[in-house]
Amino acid sequence: MAQQLEPIAKMVAQLARLPGIGHKSAQRIAYHIISMPLEDVRELATSVYNGRKAIRYCSVCGNYATGDRCDICANDQRHNGQICVVRDPRDVAAIERMRDFRGLYHVLHGALSPMDGVGPEDIRIKELMARLNDPGITEIILATNPDIEGEATASYLARLIKPMGLKVTRIAHGVPVGSDLEYADEITLAKAMEGRREM
Amino acid sequence: MAQQLEPIAKMVAQLARLPGIGHKSAQRIAYHIISMPLEDVRELATSVYNGRKAIRYCSVCGNYATGDRCDICANDQRHNGQICVVRDPRDVAAIERMRDFRGLYHVLHGALSPMDGVGPEDIRIKELMARLNDPGITEIILATNPDIEGEATASYLARLIKPMGLKVTRIAHGVPVGSDLEYADEITLAKAMEGRREM
Repeated sequence: MAQQLEPIAKMVAQLARLPGIGHKSAQRIAYHIISMPLEDVRELATSVYNGRKAIRYCSVCGNYATGDRCDICANDQRHNGQICVVRDPRDVAAIERMRDFRGLYHVLHGALSPMDGVGPEDIRIKELMARLNDPGITEIILATNPDIEGEATASYLARLIKPMGLKVTRIAHGVPVGSDLEYADEITLAKAMEGRREM
Repeated sequence: MAQQLEPIAKMVAQLARLPGIGHKSAQRIAYHIISMPLEDVRELATSVYNGRKAIRYCSVCGNYATGDRCDICANDQRHNGQICVVRDPRDVAAIERMRDFRGLYHVLHGALSPMDGVGPEDIRIKELMARLNDPGITEIILATNPDIEGEATASYLARLIKPMGLKVTRIAHGVPVGSDLEYADEITLAKAMEGRREM
């Protein structure tokens, strides 16, 4: 019986490696691509390859950049007294979407995880510590994820930085805005109660 | 506030045009691609572009091919007395996966749809009729989709071909194997009853 043509099978195999794309979706996407005009496929393929090629890490904060510094570090309108510490460049993007925070970032590119053998020397903690020598810095906001690794990383950094006399804060845990209490898990609810404020 | 970097925004826009990929998934995939080794991204991009470039249509049946004829038309082990008429090359792939049908195919590359202005001259009906002059042909199996356009196309072809004295069949409609009667829609159930066979 006829097998799938080799160029299609190859495309499907490559697409199926992307996150959230199973074999069935990869097949559907591949057939779609084959039905697209060649010029459009060239544009798709080059946007992927050139996009990846154009991106490097900011030499200061580790965020995505097209030059030596990212747009945020290069922007002198940003307050350089606050550094918000996150795990990934995509966390920077999430906080930027909020259009509220005007300070700088530091991207760790990972979180402490003894289980996976990720220690302090494996993420960009040394680079963060080097930045803290700047006397203009007043606050370090720990915005690592509210999961085990993120909490461990936040505690580790707090223990490391607080003795330097800097203000160290952690983003609040609580019930997401617009959500339903009924569906909140107990730990989130407990954190929300713990972090309650007078109105 | 910092916008998404232009190479990333471009990649996201391209990925979001693919079927089943919304803006959020496109963003997740783009960030994943940016974290991939450049060599792997090159492989992904070339598999997409070269894959699309390598595929053309079989000059006989309209199926996907890498040469002039597709693997099925080029295979002299296939019975050339039966032609199974389908809408898309992906329908050929689906029937081939069944590993049961040993005849040939004819891909229409569309279905009749007066609503969308698709008439008989817009799909590969002329090419099908030309193939029917072969005296070895004994049966035309209409395997267009069981939807409005597919049924309209099947009826149209049956009216066209039956006067030529050829056997024209339509694939059976019924409840899918392994499914639950409870969830079958009424039309499918009615078709299943109508098509019942003695055991």
